[in-house]
Amino acid sequence: MDNMNLGKHISGQFNTELENVRNQVLVMGGLVEQQLTDALAAIHDQDLDAARRIVGSDHKVNAMEVAIDEECTRIIAKRQPTASDLRLVMAIIKTIAELERIGDVAERIARMLTDNANKPQPPLVSLESMGRRTIKMLHDVLDAFARMDLDAAIAVYQEDDKVDRDYESVIRELMTYMMEDPRTIPQVLNVLWAARAIERVGDRCQHICEYIIYFVKGKDVRHTKGDEFTNLVNKP
Amino acid sequence: MDNMNLGKHISGQFNTELENVRNQVLVMGGLVEQQLTDALAAIHDQDLDAARRIVGSDHKVNAMEVAIDEECTRIIAKRQPTASDLRLVMAIIKTIAELERIGDVAERIARMLTDNANKPQPPLVSLESMGRRTIKMLHDVLDAFARMDLDAAIAVYQEDDKVDRDYESVIRELMTYMMEDPRTIPQVLNVLWAARAIERVGDRCQHICEYIIYFVKGKDVRHTKGDEFTNLVNKP
Repeated sequence: MDNMNLGKHISGQFNTELENVRNQVLVMGGLVEQQLTDALAAIHDQDLDAARRIVGSDHKVNAMEVAIDEECTRIIAKRQPTASDLRLVMAIIKTIAELERIGDVAERIARMLTDNANKPQPPLVSLESMGRRTIKMLHDVLDAFARMDLDAAIAVYQEDDKVDRDYESVIRELMTYMMEDPRTIPQVLNVLWAARAIERVGDRCQHICEYIIYFVKGKDVRHTKGDEFTNLVNKP
Repeated sequence: MDNMNLGKHISGQFNTELENVRNQVLVMGGLVEQQLTDALAAIHDQDLDAARRIVGSDHKVNAMEVAIDEECTRIIAKRQPTASDLRLVMAIIKTIAELERIGDVAERIARMLTDNANKPQPPLVSLESMGRRTIKMLHDVLDAFARMDLDAAIAVYQEDDKVDRDYESVIRELMTYMMEDPRTIPQVLNVLWAARAIERVGDRCQHICEYIIYFVKGKDVRHTKGDEFTNLVNKP
């Protein structure tokens, strides 16, 4: 299935530019995925050096966002894309904004470790299952983006319910922890913020799914839910 | 100061379209500002009916975002804008995404009230000063957007430090509250989420400032801080 229709352009140069910018998104996505994976591993291993490296490298993701954004604006001005080409550029502009915010989450988790280096350890372990699930969502949505695969995007979209359930259970666990020993409240709140941030990664992956659907189907499915979403996505 | 350079277009119709879409952004912004104001008033007055109305009207903001987004893509495809016209369209696309998320914050605050209708009241009062300050930031950034006023945008940008300080103080207050009476933890956590959401409104207003600066100066100042930010903004 050649959703990209890249063969149709008269300008081979335009093809190359679109292909390059798509590849840059995937490189950026790979970097963000690595940072999130490293951040969760740093929690597991209580590895402060790893956490410091993650905090120190967030600027790379930011720089990539700005560069890809500029390239997209340049393509619009120079190539005046329409129809699916324009949708692709718009989908890219929105996708990189989500990826940048996911990179911020990795940084925030890493900072939680470095800021609490000498304090008693809160129950960080409860973040692991949720963390693994969101990393898988991010990995799969980047894969769907690479192939502009509608079905894969819909599958990732539906995974977020599980992240939400994980999150609810983490919150209940942390709440019990605080109520049993109120002295832990400041440390546990840090874990709560991290849990919230990880939960938001699932939402952001859902947004990227919506941009893939927008590109493939030409329909804006944001803010639709349940039957309305299914109908919009399935209509030919 | 005519930053808009609207007079330069050969096509009067194009002028009208750009002017219309800018006006729609201001209408959307006004609606979001009203919802945030109403949500904070509902907290103050413990007004559940008002809170339910806010929850019920978030779809209006969502629909406006989708409509303006579509109109921007249509303008790009049909009018093939370049230079400052293209920057204006890009700034609009990004601004409405921030406004939509600010609308979500109003909804979340309202839901916190409706979901906890019959439970003991947590110390909601601590959100007021912070809430007032972020509403003022939102009002002022919309005003700066209407006039594409660089100096006004920079002034709003700098206000966020005060919101951050308010937020820190709210968090400390709520933490003390929980430690003194751990039975209140579930309710107080709701207030914490609301405080966090309001603090994020300040960040989102800063993002809109960055889009105004991008339009006026043609420079992407995201992810720059301190001297680097000042230098980029002040360079001719």
